[in-house]
Amino acid sequence: MYARFVKHPFMSRATLEHFSAEALTRAMLRFELALAAAEETHGALPSGTHNALKTQLEAYTFDLDALEAGIVQGGNVAIPFVKQAKKALPDELKKRFHVAATSQDVVDSALMILTRERLPVILGLTLRINQALAALMRAHGETLMIGRTLMQQAMPMTFGVKAAQWAVGIEQGRQRLNDVAEHGLYVQFGGPVGVQAGLDDGLTIMKTLATTLGLSSPVLPWHTDRQPIHALITALDALACGAEKIATDISLLTQSEIGEVREPAGEGMGESSSMPHKHNPVRCALIRTAARQIHGHTATIINAAAQPLERALGEWHAEWAPLIESQALLEGALEQLVVVLEGLEVIPEAMQRNLNAAGTGGEAELGSSRAQVARVLAMLGE
Amino acid sequence: MYARFVKHPFMSRATLEHFSAEALTRAMLRFELALAAAEETHGALPSGTHNALKTQLEAYTFDLDALEAGIVQGGNVAIPFVKQAKKALPDELKKRFHVAATSQDVVDSALMILTRERLPVILGLTLRINQALAALMRAHGETLMIGRTLMQQAMPMTFGVKAAQWAVGIEQGRQRLNDVAEHGLYVQFGGPVGVQAGLDDGLTIMKTLATTLGLSSPVLPWHTDRQPIHALITALDALACGAEKIATDISLLTQSEIGEVREPAGEGMGESSSMPHKHNPVRCALIRTAARQIHGHTATIINAAAQPLERALGEWHAEWAPLIESQALLEGALEQLVVVLEGLEVIPEAMQRNLNAAGTGGEAELGSSRAQVARVLAMLGE
Amino acid sequence: MYARFVKHPFMSRATLEHFSAEALTRAMLRFELALAAAEETHGALPSGTHNALKTQLEAYTFDLDALEAGIVQGGNVAIPFVKQAKKALPDELKKRFHVAATSQDVVDSALMILTRERLPVILGLTLRINQALAALMRAHGETLMIGRTLMQQAMPMTFGVKAAQWAVGIEQGRQRLNDVAEHGLYVQFGGPVGVQAGLDDGLTIMKTLATTLGLSSPVLPWHTDRQPIHALITALDALACGAEKIATDISLLTQSEIGEVREPAGEGMGESSSMPHKHNPVRCALIRTAARQIHGHTATIINAAAQPLERALGEWHAEWAPLIESQALLEGALEQLVVVLEGLEVIPEAMQRNLNAAGTGGEAELGSSRAQVARVLAMLGE
Amino acid sequence: MYARFVKHPFMSRATLEHFSAEALTRAMLRFELALAAAEETHGALPSGTHNALKTQLEAYTFDLDALEAGIVQGGNVAIPFVKQAKKALPDELKKRFHVAATSQDVVDSALMILTRERLPVILGLTLRINQALAALMRAHGETLMIGRTLMQQAMPMTFGVKAAQWAVGIEQGRQRLNDVAEHGLYVQFGGPVGVQAGLDDGLTIMKTLATTLGLSSPVLPWHTDRQPIHALITALDALACGAEKIATDISLLTQSEIGEVREPAGEGMGESSSMPHKHNPVRCALIRTAARQIHGHTATIINAAAQPLERALGEWHAEWAPLIESQALLEGALEQLVVVLEGLEVIPEAMQRNLNAAGTGGEAELGSSRAQVARVLAMLGE
Repeated sequence: MYARFVKHPFMSRATLEHFSAEALTRAMLRFELALAAAEETHGALPSGTHNALKTQLEAYTFDLDALEAGIVQGGNVAIPFVKQAKKALPDELKKRFHVAATSQDVVDSALMILTRERLPVILGLTLRINQALAALMRAHGETLMIGRTLMQQAMPMTFGVKAAQWAVGIEQGRQRLNDVAEHGLYVQFGGPVGVQAGLDDGLTIMKTLATTLGLSSPVLPWHTDRQPIHALITALDALACGAEKIATDISLLTQSEIGEVREPAGEGMGESSSMPHKHNPVRCALIRTAARQIHGHTATIINAAAQPLERALGEWHAEWAPLIESQALLEGALEQLVVVLEGLEVIPEAMQRNLNAAGTGGEAELGSSRAQVARVLAMLGE
Repeated sequence: MYARFVKHPFMSRATLEHFSAEALTRAMLRFELALAAAEETHGALPSGTHNALKTQLEAYTFDLDALEAGIVQGGNVAIPFVKQAKKALPDELKKRFHVAATSQDVVDSALMILTRERLPVILGLTLRINQALAALMRAHGETLMIGRTLMQQAMPMTFGVKAAQWAVGIEQGRQRLNDVAEHGLYVQFGGPVGVQAGLDDGLTIMKTLATTLGLSSPVLPWHTDRQPIHALITALDALACGAEKIATDISLLTQSEIGEVREPAGEGMGESSSMPHKHNPVRCALIRTAARQIHGHTATIINAAAQPLERALGEWHAEWAPLIESQALLEGALEQLVVVLEGLEVIPEAMQRNLNAAGTGGEAELGSSRAQVARVLAMLGE
Repeated sequence: MYARFVKHPFMSRATLEHFSAEALTRAMLRFELALAAAEETHGALPSGTHNALKTQLEAYTFDLDALEAGIVQGGNVAIPFVKQAKKALPDELKKRFHVAATSQDVVDSALMILTRERLPVILGLTLRINQALAALMRAHGETLMIGRTLMQQAMPMTFGVKAAQWAVGIEQGRQRLNDVAEHGLYVQFGGPVGVQAGLDDGLTIMKTLATTLGLSSPVLPWHTDRQPIHALITALDALACGAEKIATDISLLTQSEIGEVREPAGEGMGESSSMPHKHNPVRCALIRTAARQIHGHTATIINAAAQPLERALGEWHAEWAPLIESQALLEGALEQLVVVLEGLEVIPEAMQRNLNAAGTGGEAELGSSRAQVARVLAMLGE
Repeated sequence: MYARFVKHPFMSRATLEHFSAEALTRAMLRFELALAAAEETHGALPSGTHNALKTQLEAYTFDLDALEAGIVQGGNVAIPFVKQAKKALPDELKKRFHVAATSQDVVDSALMILTRERLPVILGLTLRINQALAALMRAHGETLMIGRTLMQQAMPMTFGVKAAQWAVGIEQGRQRLNDVAEHGLYVQFGGPVGVQAGLDDGLTIMKTLATTLGLSSPVLPWHTDRQPIHALITALDALACGAEKIATDISLLTQSEIGEVREPAGEGMGESSSMPHKHNPVRCALIRTAARQIHGHTATIINAAAQPLERALGEWHAEWAPLIESQALLEGALEQLVVVLEGLEVIPEAMQRNLNAAGTGGEAELGSSRAQVARVLAMLGE
C-alpha cells in the first residue's frame, strides 16, 4: 500500500492499529452486547439474553474479508456485521440481536468507543510536551534572544517566555480536547429513524448503554445532529494548530543563518539524499505535514455537518476516515513534538549573537517576562 | 458596492453596522484609554494621564479616510490610528499614549470588544429559535410523519421529535458559542514582541485592562497563539451547521411532491422572475448560503492558525474579514431562521398522506418519541 | 464599513468599483437588451423591439436601493431588477422584456460580463510581473547565492535562476487564467429550467447573445453545471499561489539575519507602531493575506459545485461574493507584487556572505542555471 | 486496517494496488535508470553505465520494510531507497547512481509515472459514462418530466435533456483532466536546489528523461513551483464535481415521493440493517462521499501550494496522500457512476404523474430541448 511510504510516516502506527478492522469489529460487538444487556435490564429483552448472545458471539470469529466485501451493498460495515452475527446465532437469538438498533448506531458507537480509548494517549502526550516546555522555561528564563515580528528582528525577549507561550497554546488545545473526551463522546442509539421506535423507554436504555461502554449519554440520538463530531474534529484541529505553531517556530529558528535551536540529533535524522552536510528539521516537517492534512479533514467534516433528514446520503460516510486519520495524524505529530522538545538543542550564544546584531539598544526589560514564565509554570503545576 | 447585491442579503445589516469603521475606531480608542487607565492604576503612568488623554481624544474626530489611506504602509489600521491620535495630543501626552503596546494589541482588542458586544444578539436569536422549536414540539408531539433515511421513506416518527432533534443541535451550538462569549474573548496586550517589555507587571495591567473592557484576561498575550480565534470561529461554524441542518431539512420537506412544511408566506417571498406559481423556500436558501460561506471562512482561519514567531506575516491579517463576516452571516442566517420557524406552516395531512404511502405497516410506537420531546422541552426550560 | 479597515487594503479598489451595484445593474441591462436583440434577429420577437426597449431603459435610472431591498424576497437581484424594468416599460413592451429568460440567466451573465472586462487587467499585471522578473534574471544571472531546502542552507544557485523559477510559476498561472478568459467565460441563457423552453432555436439565440456580449457560447446552459465557475475560481487560485510563493520567498530572504533582498523602500512603508527601526515586508504580508483568503473562497465554491436539479438552493448564491472578492484580492495582490518586484532591492554582498558561511565547498557549477535563465527569458519573449 | 471498513469502499481498489509500495519502488527505480540512460546519452555518465545499473538493480529485491523504516529520518522514501540501491551496487557504480538528482526528483517523478499510467483508466470511465448518458438521451429525448428549481416543481423538460446536461458537466471535467494527463504530468529533475548543478546541460537531460518515462518535460524543474500539482488536483476535483452533481440529482429523483429514477437493482444493493423494504441509492451515497473527501484533499493541496525557497518543510509532503487518494476516490466514484447510469431505471409514468401534479399548464415546448440533446450527442460523437 502507498500509505506505508507516503502517509503512515506522519501518523501514529499505534493509533492505526487501534482502529484496525479487527478492533472495529470488536467494538461493534461490544456495542451490540452492551445494548442487549441494557435492553434486558430495562425489560425490553428476556432475562438471559445478554449472556446467551455473549457466549455465542464472543466465541465466534468474524470473517473480516466477508465483512469488507459486504460493505458496498449497504454502504457501511454494520450491515454485513449484523448479518454475519445473526447467521452465527441460533434462531431464537437472531431476533434478540440488534433490537431496535440501526447500522448508524453501531458504527457511530464503535467509532466513539475506540476514540474514547485512544484520546487519553493523545492527552498524555500533551502532558509530556508541557513538561518538556516547563523544563525549557526553567532553564531559559534568563536566556535572552531577539523577538521577531513579520519575520524581522524586533525587540528582546527570552527563550523561556517563548516556551511559555508555546505551552499556553498546547494547554488550550489540551483542555478543549479533554472536555470532548470527558463529556462529548456519545453513544449512538436511535434506531432506524432516531426515535427509538418500539421501545417504551429508549432514553433510559441509551443511558445504561452509555454507562456500560464508558461513553457519554447524549440528550437525544444524534444521527443527523453532528455537533458532537464537529466539536471533536475542531478540537483535534486546535491541538494540531498548537503543535504546528511550535514546529513552525522551531524550523524558522533552526535556519542556518539564525541557528538558535536545533532538533535533537539522532542517527541519520535530518539527512538528505544528496547533501551530507545538512541537518534538516525533519521532525518539524512531519508535524507540519500532519497538521495541514488535519485542516483538510476538518474542512471535509464541517462541510458535511448539516446532514439531511434522518440519515445522510454520503455526508455521514465522509466523516469516518477523516476522523480516524486526524487522530492518527495528531498523535503522530505529538509523538514527534515530544522528541523534538525533550531533546531540543538551545544555543544561547547564537541567540546572543543575533540579539547583538539586532542593535535594538538598551537592556531587555524582563520583569513581565519572568512573571509570564512563572504564571505558566504555575498553571502547569510545575 | 457589489456587496449590496450579492453579499449583504445573506448578512445581518446590524452586525455590519456594528463593525463599521467608525465603531472600530471607537473600539481602538476605548482600548487605548482603558490601557492608560490601567497603567496609571498600576503606576506605569503618572496620575491624571488617563483623564488628560480622555479629554483630548474623546473630543477629537478621527479622519477615517486618512486612517484607511494609511493602512497599506504598515498593514493594519492601528498604525495610522496611533499616529493620528498622537498628532492630536499635546507633546507631553504623546509619549504617554499607546505605552508598551503594539498595533496587534489594538486591533485584536478592538475586534474582541465589538465581538463581545455583538455575540449576545446572536445568542438571543438562538433562544428565540429554541422557543419556536418548543412551540412546534408541543403542537406536533403526536403529529405522525414518515422518517427518511438516505432520502428514502423509512419508518414513522413525529414532527415534534424532529423539532426536538433540531433544537438539540441548536442548543449545543449555542452553549459552545456562549462559552466562548463568556470566557474566551480575551483582551490582547503584549507589546512589540508579546512579553510586555518595559513593564514591571504587565500581567496585572492586562488583567485590569480586561476588566475595564469587559473582556476575559488570557494567561498570556496571544499574538501568535490563535487558539482563542480558533475556538471562536469554530463555535460560530458549529452554530451555523445547526441552522444549516434545519434549513436543509425544511427545504427537503417543502419539495412539491412532499409538501409537509412551508416557509411562512409573506408578500412576494419566494417569488420567481419567470414562474409566478412558485413558492420557493428562499429563506432556507439564504441560510444555506451563509453557512457555506462560514465554512469557507473557517477553512481560511484554521489554515492560518499556526502563526510564526512573534507576529505573523499575513496569517493574522487573513483572520479579520472572515471573523467579522462570519458573525454577520451567522446573525443573518439566524434572523431568517427565526422567521422561518416562528411562522412555519406544518401540514399534518400531507405528512399523513406520505406516511400512508410509505406502507411501513403497523402503528408507530411513539413511547420514546414522547419522552424525547419531553426531555428537550425540559432542557430548554419550556 | 468594516471592510475599509480590515478587508479593502488587500484588494484592488478598482476591481471593487468595477463590480459596483451600479455596474452590476448596467451589466444586467446589457444582458436583457442583447437578449432582445438576439431574439429579434432570430424571429422570436417582433422587429423593432430591441430599439424600443433600449430607448426606454437606457434613459431609465434604476433605483438601486429598491433593488437591494427587493433581493430578499426571491434571493437574487435579478428578480427586483426585472420587476423594476417592467414597471418602467409601456404595457406592450413589458411582455417583450426578459423573454424566455430566468433570473439566473441575468445574474450569471452579468457576472461573466464584468469578469470578462476585468480579467485583462489581472492578466496585464502578470505581464508586468514577468517583465520585472525578466529584468531580475538578466541582472542576476551570475549573482551567486545559497539555495535553501527544508529551511536549511543547501547548495549554491543564482538569484537569476530563482527569479526564472518564480516566472515559470506566474506564467503557468497566467496561461491558465488566460485560457479561461478567452474561452471559458460563458453567457448564461436557459430559461426557467435550463431548456430554453418556448423557443424554437434557443441555442442559436444563445450564440448570438454570446457574441454580442463578448462572451463564449457554452454547449448548453449551465445553471447547475458549475464546471465553468470551478475552472474560473481554481485558475484565480492558481495564480494567487504563484504570487504567494514569491511573497513567501521574499519574506524569508528579507529576514534580518539573511538580508538578501528587501521590499522597495517608500515613505512609511513597512513601518511599525512601536519599533521605528523596523522595515517590514508589508507588501508580502498583504499578498499572503489575499492568497489565503482566495484559498478559503475556493473551498467554498468547490464544495458548492454540485448543484441540485435545475437550480440550486444556496449553492449558487454562495458563489457570488467569493468569486468577485477573489478577483479583487488577486488583482490587489498582483498590484503589490508588481511594486515589490519592480523595486526589489537585491543585495549580492549578503548573498555572498551567506554563501561563504554555508561552506558547501567548490564553485557553483552554473551551466544549467544559465540555460534555465535563458530558456525562461526566451519563453517570456524577452 | 480501519481503511478496509471505512475508506476503501469509496475507492478504486485497482488504483490503490497501482500505487502500492512495491509499485512506487519500481517507479523510483525506473526514474533512476532512465536518468542514468539520459545522462549517459548526453555524456554525463560513461557509456555502459545504464546497462550496468539496470543489470544490478532489476535483479535486486528491495526490502520494503527497511524502506518504510527509513523514511522518518529524512522525511521521504527516496532517501532510504537511494541508500539501499547504492548498497546493492558495486563500488564503482555507487557514484554513478542518482547523479545530480535529489530525493524530490525521485518522489515527484515516481508519483507522476504512476499517475500517468492510471489517469487513462479514469478517462476511460468518463467515456463509458458519456456513452451511458448518450443512451439515456436517445431513449428519453421525448420523455417529459417536471424541472425543479430551488427544490420546487417549476416547468417541464425532458429526461433526455437532463442527461445531456449531465454529460456536458462530465465532458468538461474529462477534457480538463485529459489536458493535464496529456501535457501536464511532468518529470521532476532539478538536483539538490533545482538548478541542475554539476551538469552542463541539465535541461536536455531532463527532456530525454521525460521522453523515456512518457512524461512531459517542464520548462524548469518544479520543486517549489507546484502549479502542476494544483492543475492536477483541481482537474480531479472538477471531474468529481461532475459525478457528484449526477449522484445528487439521482438521489433526489429517487426519493420515495418522487420515484422517477432508481439505481439499478442488484442482489442486496441498497439494503438496510433494519428496514428490509428500503432500496437506498447507496451508490450515489458512495459517489457523494468520495467527492466530498476529494474537496477536502483539494483544500489541503491548494493551501500548501506556495512552497518556500528550494524545498518545502511539510507542504510538499502534505500533497502525497491527498493526491493518490483523490485518484483512488475519483476512480471509485466513476466506477459506481458507470454502474448507476448503465443500469438506471427510468420511470416515465412517475415523471408524467409528477408533471401532471405540477399543473404548470400547457404543453412543454420542446424545440430547444431536442436541439440540446442533438448537440450533445454530436459533441460526444454519438
